[in-house]
Amino acid sequence: MDMDTLLVEPAGLEQVESALGRFFEDSKSRAARISPGYHGLWETLERSTAGGKRFRPRLVMSAYQLLGGSDIANAADLGAAFELLHTALIVHDDVIDRDFVRRGIPNVSGRYRMIAEKAGMPSEGARHVGFSAGVIAGDLALSNAHRLLARVEAPSMVRLRLGEILDEAVFASAAGEFLDIETSLDATVPPLEDIVHMARLKTSVYSFEGPLQAGAVLAGASEEVITRLGDFGRDVGIAYQVADDILGVFGNETRTGKTNWGDLREGKRTALMSFVSTRPEWDSISSLVGNPGMSAAEADYVRRILMDTGAKDYSEGLAADYAARARLHLDSDAVPSALRAALEPVVSAVVDRVH
Amino acid sequence: MDMDTLLVEPAGLEQVESALGRFFEDSKSRAARISPGYHGLWETLERSTAGGKRFRPRLVMSAYQLLGGSDIANAADLGAAFELLHTALIVHDDVIDRDFVRRGIPNVSGRYRMIAEKAGMPSEGARHVGFSAGVIAGDLALSNAHRLLARVEAPSMVRLRLGEILDEAVFASAAGEFLDIETSLDATVPPLEDIVHMARLKTSVYSFEGPLQAGAVLAGASEEVITRLGDFGRDVGIAYQVADDILGVFGNETRTGKTNWGDLREGKRTALMSFVSTRPEWDSISSLVGNPGMSAAEADYVRRILMDTGAKDYSEGLAADYAARARLHLDSDAVPSALRAALEPVVSAVVDRVH
Repeated sequence: MDMDTLLVEPAGLEQVESALGRFFEDSKSRAARISPGYHGLWETLERSTAGGKRFRPRLVMSAYQLLGGSDIANAADLGAAFELLHTALIVHDDVIDRDFVRRGIPNVSGRYRMIAEKAGMPSEGARHVGFSAGVIAGDLALSNAHRLLARVEAPSMVRLRLGEILDEAVFASAAGEFLDIETSLDATVPPLEDIVHMARLKTSVYSFEGPLQAGAVLAGASEEVITRLGDFGRDVGIAYQVADDILGVFGNETRTGKTNWGDLREGKRTALMSFVSTRPEWDSISSLVGNPGMSAAEADYVRRILMDTGAKDYSEGLAADYAARARLHLDSDAVPSALRAALEPVVSAVVDRVH
Repeated sequence: MDMDTLLVEPAGLEQVESALGRFFEDSKSRAARISPGYHGLWETLERSTAGGKRFRPRLVMSAYQLLGGSDIANAADLGAAFELLHTALIVHDDVIDRDFVRRGIPNVSGRYRMIAEKAGMPSEGARHVGFSAGVIAGDLALSNAHRLLARVEAPSMVRLRLGEILDEAVFASAAGEFLDIETSLDATVPPLEDIVHMARLKTSVYSFEGPLQAGAVLAGASEEVITRLGDFGRDVGIAYQVADDILGVFGNETRTGKTNWGDLREGKRTALMSFVSTRPEWDSISSLVGNPGMSAAEADYVRRILMDTGAKDYSEGLAADYAARARLHLDSDAVPSALRAALEPVVSAVVDRVH
């Protein structure tokens, strides 16, 4: 599920775009002075940020402005910092997942694997060249998320707090990636509690809680709003991830832009799997799930079991529950109604998509 | 060549150690609240910073104090930031170089490859688990280099400048890593100019120029000193790298702690190779250099050619030249004699080692 249609357009997105544009122009000129190849790496990194819908900057800009902030250019640097963090995380996530394509085009690793293959490097070496370029490009994006944050002008207590929010986003995302790897080493499917915890770490913190709280902190919002936005972000992020995992198995491939059995072949640990793994029917599918050679017919069979056991209904209910909880957190006089209204489409989109 | 004996001990190294210790204690308690496994990743990262001789913090602390700085605790955070940057770069460099061992013990990737193998994962998958853990751990170190820098208290212009120095260190190191990969795709050995440029990018900027200039900037030193320390760092870093490459081929294995034909098998692009590749004798060794199956006898033969053609003498002379240039940059009334005296052992150690 793309996050593109989840949010009304706040003012200041062009400034986020300009901030990112200026950042990449500067970096590319610096890189060109070093070598044409390094300039090319920066172009590739820039391309991997393009085409995104700036979901996290949208949250930053919405929270900031609807909580009274008016220095749009300043907030735009903050929005751009979260966008670069997002880029860093997806570029490194692709390395970890050994993916060479994103949104149907070669990602950073895919591009450099191709270049290495053209140079005559054997396949395994070329893959590693791809991974290596991905590691370097992601490092540049990560380091510069901090640099863009450092450009934000604010009193020192606010700066400190913004730094902590970015840090928490990195810390939690790294934890989520790491737990994913650990989980993949274990044949048992984790309990639902762990699935929800991982969704929070991998999705909620950097995509929802962090951007919303950062925008609020920069706007000088009250502690109550900041806490409520954090709680909202946590729960809507979990709802989003649970819904996304359902779409990964049952979604329309044209709409989601990816095959809907990739997650089954990978054996991705989701609420669906956690639920079904405690049912007797699990015995009939456990050897299929996570099998890279799974056929289309086998995938259909697994889907049937997920429906018959109620795993799909359960997961849809779980997403709806977390979405409802998220809504409740905004139900306070401390949260301006305009902000509540702006965030409502995020919640409803999450729930609507899976029904 | 280790950098351990290159520098007299400045005051404040214990404070650097405490700053790093506190940082890892905090991070480990946070990680423990997430999961025992994530706590383990942080322990592994901490271990990969232990045992180093804190060469970069030494440069920071020396420059800072010998240029009049007196807030040791504050400078210690700056020193610790450069140490974490160093950790990030070696952890990711090991991923890129597909190394699973450093200083004779498993590195981050090595440890997690082992864990994956014990969990029954086949060899290629286990390697990738190792790489993935390395990517995540390096990200944490890189992100926290910025966090430690943000703790340094300083007027906003000084903070800005320190941020630029750290950024330049990341930017140049990434460029150096990337050019290394690009070079490995090309069968021709690059000209000496490119070898020197890469040494500057990979070694000088983050290990010498950055730490020295950061210490000087925090101490409020004059522009002339800052420029001279940058020039000194650039040239001594190049001298260091050229010398290190000679040791990588001719060094005593016990002293260097690594085999002295790894670089030959890898076909590492060095001043030695750049020199010999323009000689007729190159034809007799070009198919050996970069051959992973190179025998001990073949390595001896390559060494013989490097000596007979004068490639070794030439490289030694090159290292000595850059060391001499480095010394000249300090030859100014603007550089306090105590600082010159403190940096002299760095220069002489570089030259002495290769003779």
